Amino acid sequence: MTLGEITRYVHEHIPITRALGAEVDAYDRTSVRLVAPLGPNLNHRSTAFGGSLSALAILAGWTLLHLALRERGIGAQVVIQRSEMDFDAPVATDLAVTATLPPPEQWDRFLATLGRHRRARVRVRSTVSATPEGGGAGAHEGVYVAILAEERAGGEPGSGTASP
Amino acid sequence: MTLGEITRYVHEHIPITRALGAEVDAYDRTSVRLVAPLGPNLNHRSTAFGGSLSALAILAGWTLLHLALRERGIGAQVVIQRSEMDFDAPVATDLAVTATLPPPEQWDRFLATLGRHRRARVRVRSTVSATPEGGGAGAHEGVYVAILAEERAGGEPGSGTASP
Repeated sequence: MTLGEITRYVHEHIPITRALGAEVDAYDRTSVRLVAPLGPNLNHRSTAFGGSLSALAILAGWTLLHLALRERGIGAQVVIQRSEMDFDAPVATDLAVTATLPPPEQWDRFLATLGRHRRARVRVRSTVSATPEGGGAGAHEGVYVAILAEERAGGEPGSGTASP
Repeated sequence: MTLGEITRYVHEHIPITRALGAEVDAYDRTSVRLVAPLGPNLNHRSTAFGGSLSALAILAGWTLLHLALRERGIGAQVVIQRSEMDFDAPVATDLAVTATLPPPEQWDRFLATLGRHRRARVRVRSTVSATPEGGGAGAHEGVYVAILAEERAGGEPGSGTASP
């Protein structure tokens, strides 16, 4: 998938991301960078609206997990479970949001748990910054849950118990 | 201000709120209720996108503080400093977000600090639910900072120190 194809996929499946002006700008297996213009994300102070920053940060973590799992051949649904964001400084320029996978030992444990239990939880950090200048604006931490696609498609053969 | 006027004010000053479809549905001095349709806020699972829920919850708290301060004749800018949200259940219907002022002793302390120090911090909780059925979908807690309008307009006479 090219970056343009990833952006179109996100716009098609999560339509508010088009209104946010979010575009996938870079992806390198362990991090993803989204960019968005200030215009549609302005607040009453002519800086970026905190709700837009939070939405973009949640999206960045989701996009990173979606791409990282897909690239490793793992078909899973990813949903956000908890979001924490600190707004450090107002941004009066366009925005960049970079989400980064957790350290290898956490990531490997997440993949192992996902394989064993068909669902697993992982923590992804994102930073929001001004662009192109690069001043930091906020820090986000999202807890996401991945659920193996097979669990949703067919249920567990030979088991009458509900999924957790 | 009627509810329609409040909605128009928010749409004008924070344009992404129009794309979210957010409307101010009720306000009673201590709580505000926003509603938004599912359509523009869908995700890849045909439920509400977590980023939309977070943005709507941040908006609800901001709108409540804006209206509550204005109604009390206090001219202040309100900005979000920290956002925490738990996503408890997916929503596959339209959305309602209700933000509620903190208990009277916390609210009164906030107003007193704002008067004394020209800025003060306050914690506002919001709940996101399905509508009209009412199933709970998420809980948000926002820490907002209010800054008296005079501080921004003219600086502090006789003082050469910067604002905190």
